[in-house]
Amino acid sequence: MFFEGAEKKLEIILKNKTGSLLSIDQEVWDKAVRLCEASILSMIENDHVKAFLLSESSLFVWKDRLLMLTCGETKLVQSAHYLMDIINKEDIAAVTFQRKNEYRSHLQSTHFDDDVKLLREQTEGTALRFGQLHGHHNLLFHTNQTMPEDDDKTIELLMYDMREEVSKRLTQENLSSQDIRSFLGIEEAFPGFIVDDFSFKPYGYSLNAIKDHLYFTIHVTPQETSPYVSFETNMPLSTDGFVLKHFINKLKPESFDVMTFNCEVQSPSEDYLTICEQKERLKNGFDVCFKTYQAKHHRKTRPTVILKG
Amino acid sequence: MFFEGAEKKLEIILKNKTGSLLSIDQEVWDKAVRLCEASILSMIENDHVKAFLLSESSLFVWKDRLLMLTCGETKLVQSAHYLMDIINKEDIAAVTFQRKNEYRSHLQSTHFDDDVKLLREQTEGTALRFGQLHGHHNLLFHTNQTMPEDDDKTIELLMYDMREEVSKRLTQENLSSQDIRSFLGIEEAFPGFIVDDFSFKPYGYSLNAIKDHLYFTIHVTPQETSPYVSFETNMPLSTDGFVLKHFINKLKPESFDVMTFNCEVQSPSEDYLTICEQKERLKNGFDVCFKTYQAKHHRKTRPTVILKG
Repeated sequence: MFFEGAEKKLEIILKNKTGSLLSIDQEVWDKAVRLCEASILSMIENDHVKAFLLSESSLFVWKDRLLMLTCGETKLVQSAHYLMDIINKEDIAAVTFQRKNEYRSHLQSTHFDDDVKLLREQTEGTALRFGQLHGHHNLLFHTNQTMPEDDDKTIELLMYDMREEVSKRLTQENLSSQDIRSFLGIEEAFPGFIVDDFSFKPYGYSLNAIKDHLYFTIHVTPQETSPYVSFETNMPLSTDGFVLKHFINKLKPESFDVMTFNCEVQSPSEDYLTICEQKERLKNGFDVCFKTYQAKHHRKTRPTVILKG
Repeated sequence: MFFEGAEKKLEIILKNKTGSLLSIDQEVWDKAVRLCEASILSMIENDHVKAFLLSESSLFVWKDRLLMLTCGETKLVQSAHYLMDIINKEDIAAVTFQRKNEYRSHLQSTHFDDDVKLLREQTEGTALRFGQLHGHHNLLFHTNQTMPEDDDKTIELLMYDMREEVSKRLTQENLSSQDIRSFLGIEEAFPGFIVDDFSFKPYGYSLNAIKDHLYFTIHVTPQETSPYVSFETNMPLSTDGFVLKHFINKLKPESFDVMTFNCEVQSPSEDYLTICEQKERLKNGFDVCFKTYQAKHHRKTRPTVILKG
């Protein structure tokens, strides 16, 4: 029942004066998704953004940028390679490609080093690791060109090892997406968003939500072998404290990472200790901060049986 | 400059009444070491134990048991398969085979699941994971047969991310084994042991030490990309607190694991928080405890450059 929840992430940002990604043919998005070996489940849109819910995570498209997140054993670098080929090179202001540490990296068909090699066939770039190799970390490749002033903020919240009662609740049979949405308190916490979500069989849940140019996305891998929930948004900083607290309180993870671009957030709870903190201003101008938090009170548990004798 | 310090470990224990492993032909040990793709550098012995220092870690042989530790990309399961074939099946009381989480598991030729499959061709057994999959962990396969009363104790201390000044000290050019032995304070902390050690080029250090039936072994991978030091011993519990404190104080790791068999130790330092604790009595009768500790005060650092743009 293992599923790799840990995501790969691609972001391509265009220069301001160029045409709109929103007018690109649907076939391009179909192909980009197919190339990483995922499929499109559904789509919502408003005047600012199209949000595709995928069999493995999400694709968001704005006029001047796209964001693609995929988990499982998807090959996101293949989508990246295709999209960087489709979009006129002169129109691209920045590309970032991320992979967070996988639960079982040996099951992946490529590794970050391979992906970077492929990306560097198309563009110059720098590769960094935020976090320790033996702990949680996030591998990031980015183009070197300095971005024009960009005040867009992104927050990634990656949560591990939810409390047993949370995992049990989220692995019940026949949960509807409404059940999970209610449990996560989406409507109360995020009023006014258009929401598109999906409850996978036997477990797993994905959600995309949009309001004007804002988005958030949630992906839940509740299984006991690799419990993981990710949340990502470009919502303004003022509400972040609340948003992070909301999920930490609901899901009670044993540990979590917060990675921010062009913003910083304080620890959302006194119950956690910061165990890693790394910052860098990237060559493209983004201010990036990566923090790992660990519950101060550990739970005494028993080992996991892999194979009964 | 990456080197995988994380060890694989094999222990085979014989029933009391059988012949002595000490009388086994040297060719057998040569072949066992060759099969995992390591080589023997040197050997020390007394009336109770032979200790081989290997190109990748150590092999200890007593009358009634053997212990083999190998790191890097060695294939220890091949040695295990061979030794379980050489030793009369009826004479074997217990086999345990461990792999700790690797820094870069995708570079290994086999993974724990593959190894267990191979071992199960020769013996029944149970496979467990101590620790969380997304954190430090130790995978353990063991035979199911209950051991006759065995009060042998083992302590493994696995240290990550030594302080920068420690790493710098241990990666200086042309360090002799005497230099490293002095830095680690071996003679003062462990009087009366016969010591055999080796300083690798450009970095790395291995040490075996024996006194009567007692042993300890130290393996140092000081490089910045994967700093790791392991210590293991069967010394009696009364001195453990001191021994663990000794290494924690010398090396100042950011985090460390303590895995104990048939004994328990208290936290060696107030400066660390226990973040994982798992216990189990194995089917073979061993009481196993796995704990991970994390420094309470994190160091603010910058990300690691993987590839300069």
